[in-house]
Amino acid sequence: MGGGVHDKYSQPEGPQSCAAPSMKLPGQEELEAACACENVPVGQLDRGPSSGPCPDDPSDTGSRELGPPEDPPLFLQLNELLGWPQTLEWREMGRWVLFEEKLEVDAGRWSAPHVPTLALPSLQKLRSLLAEGLVLLDCPAQNLLELVEQVTRVESLSPELRGQLQALLLQRPQHHTQTTGSRPCWGPAQSRKAAHNKEAPMQQQCQSPLRQKLPPGAEAGAVLAGELGFLAQPLAAFVRLRDPVWLGPLTEVPLPSRFFCLLLGPPMLGKGYHELGRAAAVLLSDPHFQWSVRRASNLHDLLTALDAFLEEVTVLPPGRWDPTARIPPPRCLPSRHKRPPLHLQKVKGLSVPHRTQAEDRHRNGPLAPSPELQRTGRLFGGLVQDVRRKASWYPSDFSDALHPQCVSAVLYIYLATVTNAITFGGLLGDATDGAQGVLESLLGTAVAGAAFCLMAGQPLTVLSSTGPVLVFERLLFAFCRDYSLDYLPFRLWVGIWVAVFCLALVATEASVLVRYFTRFTEEGFCALISLIFIYDAVGKMLNLAHAYPIQRPGSLAYGCLCQFPGPGGNESQWTRPRPQSRDDLLSVDLGLVNASLLPPHECVQQGGYPRGPGCHTVPDIAFFSLLLFLTSFLFAIALKHMKTSHFFPSVVRKVLSDFSSILAILLGCGLDALLGLAMPKLMVPREFKPTLPGRGWLVPPFGANPWWLSVAAALPALLLSILIFMDQQITAVILNRVEYRLRKGAGFHLDLFCVALLMLLTSVLGLPWEQRLTGLAVFTLTGVSIFLAPVLKFIPMPVLYGIFLYMGVAALSSIQFMKRVQLMLMPAKHQPDLLLLRHVPLSRVHLFTAIQLACLGLLWIIKSTPAAIIFPLMLLGLVGVRKALEWVFSPQELLWLDELMPEEERNVPEKGLEPGHSFSGSDSEDSELMYQPKAPEINISVN
Amino acid sequence: MGGGVHDKYSQPEGPQSCAAPSMKLPGQEELEAACACENVPVGQLDRGPSSGPCPDDPSDTGSRELGPPEDPPLFLQLNELLGWPQTLEWREMGRWVLFEEKLEVDAGRWSAPHVPTLALPSLQKLRSLLAEGLVLLDCPAQNLLELVEQVTRVESLSPELRGQLQALLLQRPQHHTQTTGSRPCWGPAQSRKAAHNKEAPMQQQCQSPLRQKLPPGAEAGAVLAGELGFLAQPLAAFVRLRDPVWLGPLTEVPLPSRFFCLLLGPPMLGKGYHELGRAAAVLLSDPHFQWSVRRASNLHDLLTALDAFLEEVTVLPPGRWDPTARIPPPRCLPSRHKRPPLHLQKVKGLSVPHRTQAEDRHRNGPLAPSPELQRTGRLFGGLVQDVRRKASWYPSDFSDALHPQCVSAVLYIYLATVTNAITFGGLLGDATDGAQGVLESLLGTAVAGAAFCLMAGQPLTVLSSTGPVLVFERLLFAFCRDYSLDYLPFRLWVGIWVAVFCLALVATEASVLVRYFTRFTEEGFCALISLIFIYDAVGKMLNLAHAYPIQRPGSLAYGCLCQFPGPGGNESQWTRPRPQSRDDLLSVDLGLVNASLLPPHECVQQGGYPRGPGCHTVPDIAFFSLLLFLTSFLFAIALKHMKTSHFFPSVVRKVLSDFSSILAILLGCGLDALLGLAMPKLMVPREFKPTLPGRGWLVPPFGANPWWLSVAAALPALLLSILIFMDQQITAVILNRVEYRLRKGAGFHLDLFCVALLMLLTSVLGLPWEQRLTGLAVFTLTGVSIFLAPVLKFIPMPVLYGIFLYMGVAALSSIQFMKRVQLMLMPAKHQPDLLLLRHVPLSRVHLFTAIQLACLGLLWIIKSTPAAIIFPLMLLGLVGVRKALEWVFSPQELLWLDELMPEEERNVPEKGLEPGHSFSGSDSEDSELMYQPKAPEINISVN
Repeated sequence: MGGGVHDKYSQPEGPQSCAAPSMKLPGQEELEAACACENVPVGQLDRGPSSGPCPDDPSDTGSRELGPPEDPPLFLQLNELLGWPQTLEWREMGRWVLFEEKLEVDAGRWSAPHVPTLALPSLQKLRSLLAEGLVLLDCPAQNLLELVEQVTRVESLSPELRGQLQALLLQRPQHHTQTTGSRPCWGPAQSRKAAHNKEAPMQQQCQSPLRQKLPPGAEAGAVLAGELGFLAQPLAAFVRLRDPVWLGPLTEVPLPSRFFCLLLGPPMLGKGYHELGRAAAVLLSDPHFQWSVRRASNLHDLLTALDAFLEEVTVLPPGRWDPTARIPPPRCLPSRHKRPPLHLQKVKGLSVPHRTQAEDRHRNGPLAPSPELQRTGRLFGGLVQDVRRKASWYPSDFSDALHPQCVSAVLYIYLATVTNAITFGGLLGDATDGAQGVLESLLGTAVAGAAFCLMAGQPLTVLSSTGPVLVFERLLFAFCRDYSLDYLPFRLWVGIWVAVFCLALVATEASVLVRYFTRFTEEGFCALISLIFIYDAVGKMLNLAHAYPIQRPGSLAYGCLCQFPGPGGNESQWTRPRPQSRDDLLSVDLGLVNASLLPPHECVQQGGYPRGPGCHTVPDIAFFSLLLFLTSFLFAIALKHMKTSHFFPSVVRKVLSDFSSILAILLGCGLDALLGLAMPKLMVPREFKPTLPGRGWLVPPFGANPWWLSVAAALPALLLSILIFMDQQITAVILNRVEYRLRKGAGFHLDLFCVALLMLLTSVLGLPWEQRLTGLAVFTLTGVSIFLAPVLKFIPMPVLYGIFLYMGVAALSSIQFMKRVQLMLMPAKHQPDLLLLRHVPLSRVHLFTAIQLACLGLLWIIKSTPAAIIFPLMLLGLVGVRKALEWVFSPQELLWLDELMPEEERNVPEKGLEPGHSFSGSDSEDSELMYQPKAPEINISVN
Repeated sequence: MGGGVHDKYSQPEGPQSCAAPSMKLPGQEELEAACACENVPVGQLDRGPSSGPCPDDPSDTGSRELGPPEDPPLFLQLNELLGWPQTLEWREMGRWVLFEEKLEVDAGRWSAPHVPTLALPSLQKLRSLLAEGLVLLDCPAQNLLELVEQVTRVESLSPELRGQLQALLLQRPQHHTQTTGSRPCWGPAQSRKAAHNKEAPMQQQCQSPLRQKLPPGAEAGAVLAGELGFLAQPLAAFVRLRDPVWLGPLTEVPLPSRFFCLLLGPPMLGKGYHELGRAAAVLLSDPHFQWSVRRASNLHDLLTALDAFLEEVTVLPPGRWDPTARIPPPRCLPSRHKRPPLHLQKVKGLSVPHRTQAEDRHRNGPLAPSPELQRTGRLFGGLVQDVRRKASWYPSDFSDALHPQCVSAVLYIYLATVTNAITFGGLLGDATDGAQGVLESLLGTAVAGAAFCLMAGQPLTVLSSTGPVLVFERLLFAFCRDYSLDYLPFRLWVGIWVAVFCLALVATEASVLVRYFTRFTEEGFCALISLIFIYDAVGKMLNLAHAYPIQRPGSLAYGCLCQFPGPGGNESQWTRPRPQSRDDLLSVDLGLVNASLLPPHECVQQGGYPRGPGCHTVPDIAFFSLLLFLTSFLFAIALKHMKTSHFFPSVVRKVLSDFSSILAILLGCGLDALLGLAMPKLMVPREFKPTLPGRGWLVPPFGANPWWLSVAAALPALLLSILIFMDQQITAVILNRVEYRLRKGAGFHLDLFCVALLMLLTSVLGLPWEQRLTGLAVFTLTGVSIFLAPVLKFIPMPVLYGIFLYMGVAALSSIQFMKRVQLMLMPAKHQPDLLLLRHVPLSRVHLFTAIQLACLGLLWIIKSTPAAIIFPLMLLGLVGVRKALEWVFSPQELLWLDELMPEEERNVPEKGLEPGHSFSGSDSEDSELMYQPKAPEINISVN
């Protein structure tokens, strides 16, 4: 049983990273999308869909990329002087926050953000210009006019030239701001007119969509570069304003400016000044350079910072890389603490907060034990601690729910919950001959979910895979059927015992054992459940095809007569044409007189009896079921992938992707309704009463079972307790990973305690064993949905099977295990550049995968034998297998292939992994990436 | 008619680039794969699937990437000294030909080839080491011993140290060579043993799979770097050997070495020497540096070359790019002539052959008129020239066919030809009520193809889209049916007239007009044909569903009785149960006595008569057809995409991808056979005779038609001639594009001449109007396939429709037009970084696309009206529309969106496109890419 929610979302409390866990249980994927990625930190320049902060660094939110916390983010703009000698004008040609956007002059649009690339000579030339030029640090200018006066106070300029230059610098630049209509609003005519109306520049600047993306406190930097024929020699000026000053329409966005850089000179070859200006802007957009230059006190500091920048640049050889190729923003930015802080020490001895590798390792360590999982040693000590810890958050859990994001989350999770409850309820009713059904599933989800929300450790934060418990419920039912036991009473006792065992686990603080569940165990668990989903979906489809057989040309599907009782009972005999031995059914005398060819159901309506082999076949159902099954499966997958497609606005894509299951079900229902075939449909009761006819809401304690069965139920209850413990704790651990940045802490013991109580409740009421859940609103809505039941009867079963298949496939493809299985099919040279493969020999990787496959095979076999009901025990056995693997693999290999188990983690340093490789400090080529084996891989491909 | 080959392959004469044309006609795609990419130039290091030479540079074959033609390619290897101070050993840590491969020490494998990235300080440090170190140019050493002696003859070394150093340098390095079993064959034990057996090092070196990939004449360069504690100061030596010398087991591959670089020194921070060694290797792998250093005569030249390298490097800022990220090889390498030749002039005044931009533009200009398309001004002048030009190649066409690649090409093209002939034959027979069928299609393909191979301008080189002619044949048939004309005789006259018109076109050298067919026209043509394919495939499926209706619950599909004539003719009456007005059929007295429920076909066999509304319905056919249709379509697509998948060895992927259509058909047949339903099958004659019963092989000249129809046939013939001309010439132009590097020249006039003759032949015989073709062997085999006809009857029609749909979809998705349509659905920020979008405002791009869409809509409407048969005229009208577009778009916009028409190309310089943008010489940021608008875009994405 256990039809209900099984999904996951993290607390919608604040900025969260886009990092999604690498492993999902069937159906879990659904809810993640809506919750994990909708809160991309505001204040970041739009960097394309693929770029987000690295999940290795949970404490660094958006602010990291924009500079150390104390420094405001900087918007940089390059204004280029064009049109010499005829019509001089300034034009914005590029802009930077994190990455570069270039103005495509002909196309009149901004390029996509890309990693800026520079030519080395530009940087060197810039350095020499700055070294010889004017450097004003802490310039006190209060507006553009003062600034221009300061900047042009150079000896080499004659007064006349100075005047010309000042006028030029005060000239309004042309910005290319893309309005929603995508036409430039700063066309030449407009800007000239606007120049006369000095009052309204802010208005136009405010139109820039960029402004809303920059966080409050952001500053601007302007780089002005270009050819100016009347200059005899290059004129370079670098200004750091003492206070950020609003410099009029100099920059596209109305931000106060902090830096100002002027690079003018006589015409030179090629795009010289453009490239110099870009170099200056790129330099200023570098967080380290920015940090240094904000604190520089003289030219020397400035040049030192530039040299430090040069020491850190990455160089691509010219013959192997086209310098004009644009590199899209990488998925992860290099974290700033990886960069050597050398130059910072050079600049005034200041040092930037610099986290050590050790700290990182601790933070990012896989399954790093939470403080919640420290054993207290007292009976119910963990529970008490959980309650104490969570109590202070309890009011805030409700006030947080007023956040507007929660409304959309509630709607989304409600729909997903209902979808899942219906799917599982439908399947469960199917599997238990209606002992529980959709109605129970909805009710159970609502009651238990609401109760959990009110009581449990992580209100509003839910994760559950009902899959394993569902499997167990079915096995239990099969067991009861085989031994003619009364199912619901027996199940009641199992539930009572599970509650007892769970309480015992809570009392003994068993949750701390969760640390022994490494990825190996999690993946085995997840893979088994996924496979069961897939197997069931396909199996149920085959059953349908069996129930509605395909009619082959020679099959007996044809004839069907409608026979009516003759008025006088006088029936003439059908004479057999000739003796037929082939088929008895055909050669029987049908003895009809009053007959017609009415379709069977009309025949019955009119008082006749359908006779003949063709009366019970329903044609076309089998293939149409298959079509619906495939359609809903493929449609759900396709919609899920819409999120990463490039079509349609992101809102549309997000909706399509988030509601993929629901839309797939709707499509299936629509197709079915269109054709109007007699498809098998979801069985829904028309009234609010238990699905099984004749049972009340309270399950009788014994029913037809002998009394001793209530004791014997302890045995399956033990197995189910193991299962629930593993299921609940593994999902809780995944949920409480650092990358989700939950603030309120976990409540492992408290949650298990709630599970125990709810187990009791659902067993007594005969509701599915619901486990974990989401917000109160969701479950209130779910409860109301019970009255939607009449609508649900339009859902064809093949559609639900298709969604079921989709859940299994989606979950299966989310685990690293499957990636490693795929590696087995790939020639070495086509394998992706996984960190794993850089550090573990391929044959060892394959061996590890093969062992996992073997374990899975064994689990599957056990699941298929009469001993199936003990499979939770076997799942626990995975922990033992994992332990035994330490005899086969080195700790270092296991670190890459899995995770270290608690003891091993402590032992690693003593075992002395080779220096120079994994633990070798800052020299390692992938030390940055090493401690995020669960994070998505950086992989740049050319397509 | 026109059921036959329509496919394309270029002459398998020599190295060819992987560049495939961007536009494909339905079915054309099939053959390209096998032919275009199988001849990747040998002698290139395996660079992953995505990297090939840029198609912009047809004269530079594989040799380009490996250095200018006169310089042999260089294999570079970095041996690093590890283990100081305990156990010193040399280990190969990296290797380079085009890109870098790094040894993953832990994993024991080579990394995937990637673009090398360096830290700037390494390069600077290397420069200073070289400046102070030993530089031997034209060193006369003849073996490793002599070389080591020369290198260690440094003043700073004491004799004792020198001895130690020499011994160290002579020590055998450990190479990591991946054998097929993927275990290192140079394990420590093996290598020590091998060191004793000095005779057999070659044997082990030869095992390196790299050796076979390097072209003959390749040279090696070895870089030795590492920490050596007993050195007081760094020791650097750079040696260019006078003659390449085999230096024993120094390098992994047994190549003679030309360069030797030694970088040793006392321990320093970090990975210093490793990075220095990498820098030296990367430097040497740069073609320009290599070119210079091969010609350098002193240290100054060497350093100048290094400085020139530094000036050209691309610099990535540290904060925006993780230096440890590996960049996969770009699809296109920058062409060397784009790089400024400055440093070459500095080195000894030598200059490398440097092509000008103007030359490039000429070469790569879209649809640059071939010399074959110059008008001679004489009657049949073009034909005479064609014959003259091709005559000299005639014998070589046959001798070239002995190339082993041709065997696989023949097999591949044969299968694809047969597939297409059957598909088209099946559809044509369907459409013309059997006037032509599969047999004619096979025969026509074989006869005409063979004839064309013997006569035409491009033997073994064939391109045809039978699509348009097929469409026309069907329209012609519909026309004849509507006006009760005798189809085949009328068609004979059309064919005769087409031959006359084509001869006239040949005589007047009309082929030169082909230059007016810009991409706009080609795309309109291609899109229309593709849409017709898609429309037909779907339409035919709907027809099937109509012919085999789905049986809804209330439908009359049920009853069917088998009635036998009573022995004495005594039939009892079925009494009507009650008056029924609902349905006459049901209420009729069937009057049966001797009856059974035998299925209809058995009933007939046994002499009975099936009676009842259910007898003629065949259940399940409609949905199963749909399933087969979708299966073959999706399977064909999936298999086609296998080529770019990473699974399975490339041979397997290639086979699966190349034979995707055939495999999809086989799968469909298998599914059908498995279920054994009475699916509609391909109708194939059992004997070798025309498909239409009662007609002979020779079509009678008049038949039932009046004589004047033979004159009137000139009108449709004119239309068909236009169509054939456009079809043939557009495909010939695409085929003869520079990127295919055909050597023997085109034969536009000759080909059209052959088409004229074949038109006559096929019309007389009533064979489909076959047009163009491939190798003689293929067509001989195709002829033989006629006797395979009995096997073909197992192919269900839905499968063929699925393949048909696949062809249409594949062709449609290959044209740039569709990419632009997709742009309409994409938010600007998600649009790909197309060059087009960098230079043309989005609104203009959309306008152009909208005009194309409108033209296509108009064509479609005309095709759907009774005036359908004039659609070839409308296609020609596209040329006019394109001409009119010059009033709407600027020449520069058209250059990006389409191509320039001949006159405009001449006018461009006068019209004065703005300098600084597109035509602005070497400064333009994408001048490299500008003239290859048809080439695949460089697009690096992060996934």
